[in-house]
Formats: sequence, structure tokens, C-alpha cells
Amino acid sequence: MELRTPITELLDIRYPIVLAPMGGVSGGALAQAVTAAGGLGLIATGYGDAEWIEHEFDAAGNARVGTGFITWNLARKPELLDLVLAREPAAVMLSFGDPAPFAAKIKGAGAKLICQVQTVRQAREAAQCGADIVVAQGAEAGGHGASRGSFALIPAVADAVRPIPVLAAGGIADGRGLAAALMLGAAGVLVGTRFYATPEALGLDAAKERITQATGDETARTTVFDLVRGHDWPNVYTGRAVRNDFLERWHGHEDELAENIERERERYKRAVREGDAAATVVFAGEAVDLIHELEPAGQIVERIVREALERLAQKPS
Amino acid sequence: MELRTPITELLDIRYPIVLAPMGGVSGGALAQAVTAAGGLGLIATGYGDAEWIEHEFDAAGNARVGTGFITWNLARKPELLDLVLAREPAAVMLSFGDPAPFAAKIKGAGAKLICQVQTVRQAREAAQCGADIVVAQGAEAGGHGASRGSFALIPAVADAVRPIPVLAAGGIADGRGLAAALMLGAAGVLVGTRFYATPEALGLDAAKERITQATGDETARTTVFDLVRGHDWPNVYTGRAVRNDFLERWHGHEDELAENIERERERYKRAVREGDAAATVVFAGEAVDLIHELEPAGQIVERIVREALERLAQKPS
Repeated sequence: MELRTPITELLDIRYPIVLAPMGGVSGGALAQAVTAAGGLGLIATGYGDAEWIEHEFDAAGNARVGTGFITWNLARKPELLDLVLAREPAAVMLSFGDPAPFAAKIKGAGAKLICQVQTVRQAREAAQCGADIVVAQGAEAGGHGASRGSFALIPAVADAVRPIPVLAAGGIADGRGLAAALMLGAAGVLVGTRFYATPEALGLDAAKERITQATGDETARTTVFDLVRGHDWPNVYTGRAVRNDFLERWHGHEDELAENIERERERYKRAVREGDAAATVVFAGEAVDLIHELEPAGQIVERIVREALERLAQKPS
Repeated sequence: MELRTPITELLDIRYPIVLAPMGGVSGGALAQAVTAAGGLGLIATGYGDAEWIEHEFDAAGNARVGTGFITWNLARKPELLDLVLAREPAAVMLSFGDPAPFAAKIKGAGAKLICQVQTVRQAREAAQCGADIVVAQGAEAGGHGASRGSFALIPAVADAVRPIPVLAAGGIADGRGLAAALMLGAAGVLVGTRFYATPEALGLDAAKERITQATGDETARTTVFDLVRGHDWPNVYTGRAVRNDFLERWHGHEDELAENIERERERYKRAVREGDAAATVVFAGEAVDLIHELEPAGQIVERIVREALERLAQKPS
């Protein structure tokens, strides 16, 4: 199979599929598997546990991988960038904050700078920062994101940053999504939730199981999991998760949750220890409708490309 | 040009492009122009002014057109269905409510039944009602809609209702959108906002002008225009509009608007009379980024098809 785009050229990879750096999920094993199959794996740095990050880079072995930061968190712990650049990542992705303070250092280290954006205005700012690749992330995405939908955002971002290549993110879980992203003007895709439901992903088995069973109608963008975990995200960003007992109890009752935060935080920590997917966050995108079983990450990469090529080869008659 | 799909077969049209029945905008002239160019025009019935509807069907002349209802409003004024069926429409679209009470009558009259849905669950219900076509409408859409994004909703709805053909709606304003919709498993597109910015559309000139200048980042889903106009929409539906003075003043302050509703309603009516697009609603979808000028509706149909065919002919190398 062959599917060359400006993204495969720029990142020197076989297929234009990049692993979204999902916090606590995209570890070394998953990143390695995506890279081995011809895509590019990005290890999540999450909220910045240096030991965890080192461990996951080790777990990726000699695979050529990249990494992804929550930019507002990196601004609080800028030393993490040195730690990561010492690993000579193929690419560093920044999302959720101003990339400007970090752009020169990343590019100077020889890594490709990938900036994820949620609006057209942010896309223009990313281009001005020297982004090598811009990710247009729609609200369908699992985990943190904003409000604009992928479908209209992708071509608008492509128009705004041309000739910088664009990766589409949010709502992509099969070859139909890759083919559609290419039609909209993207040069590849960034895939999260589909890679969560793999044996290689970190995270709770119960969460992976839930993703294979949930429907997109059952997901919601919420702040309750950030509140209970004590992560103070900027207001514009919410996290899409599968509705579960915790979300149903507190979503829309954030003030009450804040009033009982100590009690609820203890309960939440206990639920995490017990691996209870009904009481802890299961971040997942609206594309869960398209995910029916766990599947090895490499097989997903191959299948997405094969399905996309089949679609693209069908001419409208 | 040729672009045949199950939709062109079923509706007996040349191109798989259907005009969204935008209230107060999709009148007879616009519907006629879309049909004349090879698509299918749907006249909006809006909140059900019988005289207006009759006038607009007259304005469409002998063109083969269809119509679209707000289903919860039709349930209050069921006599409107007889009025419309007497015009022998090619298709009747129902959206925002339960289609079941009207399905048999529509199909019995020889019109195709088009059901617009915003969730996968609703898509299954529409299929059970005997829908000939299901429209998967994403949150990117202008005017009323719900929360799921187009990108992941389209393939999920296609999977759920197969073999019933699906029209994609929400975020489509050019040939990239049509090509992407086909890749995602749709058999055509329902286009709204792009057809608002035409000479044939009804509505304020100032609103059309605003659409050509606005960005998708500037649109928002809101209930404030329904509140001030006295339309009691079910809670799940909001309307996407361009941010203007009225929206900025009241969005997030709905209780205060309700407390001052008589005063604000009078002001709003005056703004409508004065054609003031800063103080009255400009419904528009996130695809406004892709709309830069007024363009005749027939030219839009031709251009969307030409652009889509060009995209589809490009093989990934």
C-alpha cells in the first residue's frame, strides 16, 4: 500500500497517521506500535511527571517517536522540554496554550514543531510561530478540546495556513475518516480514541471495554473530571468523556462538586485505585460509534490506510 | 459533469445537493434556482404562516421542489401538511421532533420522506418510521441543531440506517465538503448557509453581507433569539448564529432577558423592521469561513459539484 502526502514527506513516515498524545494512555508501547506500523507515535507528557515520561520513552525502545505537551502546563514546568528534547524526538506537539515561548527551542533541536489548534485564529498564530504542521482539532475529539466541529474547521484551517500541512483530529476512527480528511484539505490524521482501545494503550481495561461499547450520543464535554482531579484548565477547554455515574452526578452541578471537593477527591482516588470506570474518567471522542473491539495498534494503522485507499479508488459513477 | 449516487436516483435529480429549508430564507425563488441547477430546492415552512407558504410555492413556479417542517411546530398545526401536500412536493423533510405521526401521510401522497436527525438514536427511529432519506445534521450547522459534530455523526448514521441513503448536513459550503461527505458514507449533502449568501435567498441584505465577512470562530449556539422571538424550542435544540450585539448582550444572561422580555421583544421587532443585522438574528453555520461573497445559487451548485469531482479524481500518489 502507498499513501504519500506532504505529511509523510515531512515526518518521513510511510502513512499519514499520527497517534494523539493522550495523557496516561499514549505511552511508549503504543507509540512504538504506531511507528512500527508506518505512522508516528507521540508519547503523552500529560501533567508532567518526569519519571513517568522517562519510563515511557524507555518503553518505546529504539522506535522513532515524538511527544506532545499540554502547553499551559509546560509553561509551569519548562524543564520538561529539555528532558524530552534529550530523547531526540521526531516531533513535539504543543496544544492548549501559546506555543511561542517554546517554538525556537523545539525547532532548534531538530524536532518538527506540531501545533494543535481549535480555532482558525489560533491556526494563524501557530503559522506565525513557525509550526511545521498544524493540527485542526474538532470538538468531536475525546479528552480536552474546544467547541468548533472538525468538518468545517479542517478546510478553514487548511486555507488559513497554506502551504503548511494540516492534520485532522477529532472524530476519526476508520478509513472513511482518513479519506474524508484528505478531501477536506488535510494531509493526514491525528487519531486518539481508536488507539485507546488497543492492547498497547495504558489506562484501565474497564475504560477500554467501555469505549468498545459506548455510543457517540453518550459522550459529553465536561469539566467535572478536571475539577475533581484538581487540574485548572483554562475555561475554553473542556474534556469529552463517556457519560458514567460520576459525570451524571456532577455535570451541571459543578458548584456543588466544588463545595464537596475534599470528600469527592478522596472517593475519586479510591475509584482510580479500584479501576472503577463508572466513577473515574473515560475520555473518548464521538467516533466511539465506529469502535467495536480492541485491536492491535499496528493492525489499526494498516486497516485505516487500506479502507481509505479503497474509498478513494471508488469513483462516483 | 456527472455525479450519480443513491440520492440522485431516489430524488430523480442530477446532482446530490439539497437546499436546507431555512426559515424565512429558503423561499420559492431560491428553491427554484437550486432545482433548476440540478439539485433539489426545499421551501421552508418555518413557524407555519400559511399565507407565506402559499406565496413561496407560487414563487417557485413550475419547478419541482420539496419542503421542510419543524416537526414540533407541525404537531401544533397539522393542517399545514395538507396545504403543502396539495402542492405535490417531491419531498417533505421533517426535523426536530417525532416524525411518526406524519410519515404515512407524506409517503401516501407520493412525496419522499426525508428525516433530519442529530443523533444516532434518532436515526434508528427515523429508519423505523419509513424514512426514504436520513439527514445527519452536525452541530456545525447554522440555525437550529444539537450537539454532535458532523464528522463522526455521518458515518455512524450511515452504519445505523443502511441501506437508507444519508445526506450530510452541517459545515458544507464547497466541493471539499461534498467530496468528504461521500467518503464518510453519505450519498449527498444538504446545504444551508452557503445558499443564504445568494441573491435568490430571502432575508436581510445586511445578514447576507455579514455571512460573507464572518468567521466560523465568531458563531455560537444560543437560545437568546428563540427567547426574544417567543419560539419555545425543546431544550436540546439551540440555534447557531453569528455573534452580534444582541448575542453578546444576552447569551449567558438568559434569565435577565426573560425578566425584560416585553421591552426587548419590542426592541427586537423594531430592529427587524429596520433591517439591523447587529440587533437581529443572523443564523449561520461554522462554514462561513468558506463563504466570501454572494453568488447565484445555480452557480454554487455547479461549483460544488465541479470542485468535488476534481478532488475525487486526485489519487493519493
